[in-house]
Amino acid sequence: MHNHGGEIYSHHYKLDYSVNVNCMGTPASVIEAAAKGAALSAQYPDVNCGELRSALAEFQQVKESQIVFGNGAADVIFSSILARKPGKVLVPAPTFAEYEQAAKVVGAQMVYYILKEENEFRLDEGFLDALTPDIDMAFLCNPNNPTGQLVEKKELFRILDRCAENDIFLVVDECFNEFVEEPEKYSLIKHLEQYDNLLILKAFTKTYAMAGLRLGYGLCSDQDFMAKMAECNQPWAVSIPAQFAGVAALKETEYVAQSMSILREERIFLKAELLRLGFRVFDSQANYIFFKAAADLKEACGKRDILIRDCRNYVGLAPGYFRVCVKRHEENLELVRVLEEIVNG
Amino acid sequence: MHNHGGEIYSHHYKLDYSVNVNCMGTPASVIEAAAKGAALSAQYPDVNCGELRSALAEFQQVKESQIVFGNGAADVIFSSILARKPGKVLVPAPTFAEYEQAAKVVGAQMVYYILKEENEFRLDEGFLDALTPDIDMAFLCNPNNPTGQLVEKKELFRILDRCAENDIFLVVDECFNEFVEEPEKYSLIKHLEQYDNLLILKAFTKTYAMAGLRLGYGLCSDQDFMAKMAECNQPWAVSIPAQFAGVAALKETEYVAQSMSILREERIFLKAELLRLGFRVFDSQANYIFFKAAADLKEACGKRDILIRDCRNYVGLAPGYFRVCVKRHEENLELVRVLEEIVNG
Repeated sequence: MHNHGGEIYSHHYKLDYSVNVNCMGTPASVIEAAAKGAALSAQYPDVNCGELRSALAEFQQVKESQIVFGNGAADVIFSSILARKPGKVLVPAPTFAEYEQAAKVVGAQMVYYILKEENEFRLDEGFLDALTPDIDMAFLCNPNNPTGQLVEKKELFRILDRCAENDIFLVVDECFNEFVEEPEKYSLIKHLEQYDNLLILKAFTKTYAMAGLRLGYGLCSDQDFMAKMAECNQPWAVSIPAQFAGVAALKETEYVAQSMSILREERIFLKAELLRLGFRVFDSQANYIFFKAAADLKEACGKRDILIRDCRNYVGLAPGYFRVCVKRHEENLELVRVLEEIVNG
Repeated sequence: MHNHGGEIYSHHYKLDYSVNVNCMGTPASVIEAAAKGAALSAQYPDVNCGELRSALAEFQQVKESQIVFGNGAADVIFSSILARKPGKVLVPAPTFAEYEQAAKVVGAQMVYYILKEENEFRLDEGFLDALTPDIDMAFLCNPNNPTGQLVEKKELFRILDRCAENDIFLVVDECFNEFVEEPEKYSLIKHLEQYDNLLILKAFTKTYAMAGLRLGYGLCSDQDFMAKMAECNQPWAVSIPAQFAGVAALKETEYVAQSMSILREERIFLKAELLRLGFRVFDSQANYIFFKAAADLKEACGKRDILIRDCRNYVGLAPGYFRVCVKRHEENLELVRVLEEIVNG
C-alpha cells in the first residue's frame, strides 16, 4: 500500500536516491538539539510550540498566529483536509500522493488535471478552467513532486483569484522551494495576507535533512481555518525533539547556503550525465531529477544495491518514469557509473 | 481551547502534578536510544516500525499484524475515529477529553453516560443499557482518567458482548493499566482474538515517562479495521527517535517493577494525607489521585508555584474536582506541605 520511496528498512541498499532530502545530511546542531529534547521528554511537548513558533515567525516574517505546526508536512495535509471536508478535490497528475490519501479519509471525489509529457509535465493555462465551482479544494506542489516543475507567482495569482471566485481553498506545497534557483520568485509567503483561501505547506524535512524527526508547518492568514485545523489534530502532534531541532535548524543559514551552492552544480552535472546516457530528462528545478527510461530500471539498480524511485504508482504516469535525488558529487558519480553499466548491458 | 494539564510552558512552576507520567522519569537507556535515532534522522522513519513491531509483539504476546503505531495514543484515537466515522459516540463522563475531540472531527453526536459521585464515579450496570443500537462507537478508559476507577474483566466481557450485538465498536484505553495493582485482572490484551469489535489503546508515554517523544499504539484483531486505520493516517507518523526509544523501553522491566513498587507505597501515603487534610478522596487505582476540594485550589497552588489539574473542564464535573499525579516521596511531601498551608489559611 505504501510506496513513497525510502524503503531502506526491508532491504539494505548501498545508496538511496529515492528520497529527496538535503544531500549535506542533518546539521550537527540539529541532531544535538533533538538529543537535548529527548532528555526532557518526561514532559509533554509544548502544545503551542512557543519557542519554535516565535523563531519561525521571525524567520519567515509572518505572524505567530499564521503558523500551524504538524508531525511533518503530511500531518498538516491531513489537518487541512479534515478542516475543509471537501466533496471534490482537484490535483494535477502526477503529484505527491498524500493529498489524495488524505482526501480519501473524508470520502472526497478526486479530479485530476493531467499534465502532459509533450509539455514537460508543466502546469498550463488549462488548469484555470479546471477550477470550476464544484471543486472545494485544490493542491499545487511547487516545485512539483516528482517532476520538479515550477509555477511562477504571476500564474499563481491568477489561480488564487479563480479559486477565490469559486470558493475553492488552495493548498500550495512549497516543501521544495528552498532548492530552486530563485525561491522568492515562486513563493507565496510574502503574499499570505492577501488571500484567505490559501494554505502554504512547508517542511523542515527536506531543507535540513530531518525526515526522521517529523516537523512540518502550514502558513495561513485565515484564523477561522487555522482554528478548525487545530481542532482536527491532537494538541501534542509535535514532539519535543522535533521542536528543539526546528529552533536549531533555523539558525543554520550557512549550511543552507552551502547546500544550495553544491546542489546547483550537481543538478547541472547529473542532468547532463543522464542526458549523455540517453535518457529523456525533464527540466526539474528541485533537488531531484525526473527522467524516462526502460520500465525495469529500478530493478536493475536494485540488483546493484542502488535504490531509485520508480514513479509508476503516481496517478498520470505509466511505467518508465523515475526520480533520483541530487546528492553529493561522489554519490552522483556512483549513480552515473551504475546507470552506465546498466545502459551498456 | 487546550486544557489538559502540563501547561508548564506558559508559566514556570516549581513542581508539576498535573501530568500522569511515571514518577521515576525517563530511563537513561530510552533517552540514549532516542538520541541515536535523532542522529539517523536524515532518513524517513520505517513506515512499518519493523524492529519496534517485532519487539512489542513479543512483549505483549500478540501478532505483529495486530499492532498499529501512532504519534502518541492520541494519534491512534484520531485514526480509529476516522476509520469508523461514527454517527453517535458513547463515552462515560467524566473521561479523557480526546475521544470527544476526535469524534467532533467527523461530526459525531456525543452521548454521555454520566458517572455518579455517590457511586465514587464507578461505571455501573446502567452502562450496558446505554449501549443501544443507534450507538456506533464507545470509549472506555480503564483505569479511567481522571477518576482512576477500574472496570473488571467480567464486566468488560458483558460490555463487549452487548457491543457485538448492537454493532458497536469499542475502544478500551489501557494507557494507565501498568499502574494498577493487578494489571492482568483488568487488561483485555489476552482476549484480543475473541473480539473483532475491540481496539485496545496503549502508550509508552505514561509507563516509561516519554510523553515528549510521542509513541502510542493500538491492538486489534480485525485486519480490515487495521487497514482502514492505516489509510486514515500518514505513513510516517512515528519518528525515528520514538521508534528507537520504544525498543529500548521494552527492555526496562526492572525500572517498571521498581516504579510500581514506589507507586504502590506513595499512592497509599498520598491518599491518607489528602484525607487527613479533609479532602474527599476517591479510590483511584492509577498513578494519580482524584479528589474534591475548594473550587479555587488550583489558583491557590499556582500562587505557590505548584501545578495541579483542575478538572472542571471535564464533561460531567462541576468546579471543585482535582487530579494530582503520585510522584516520589519528597515531591509528595512537598505537595502535602503546600496543600496543608492552603487548608490552614
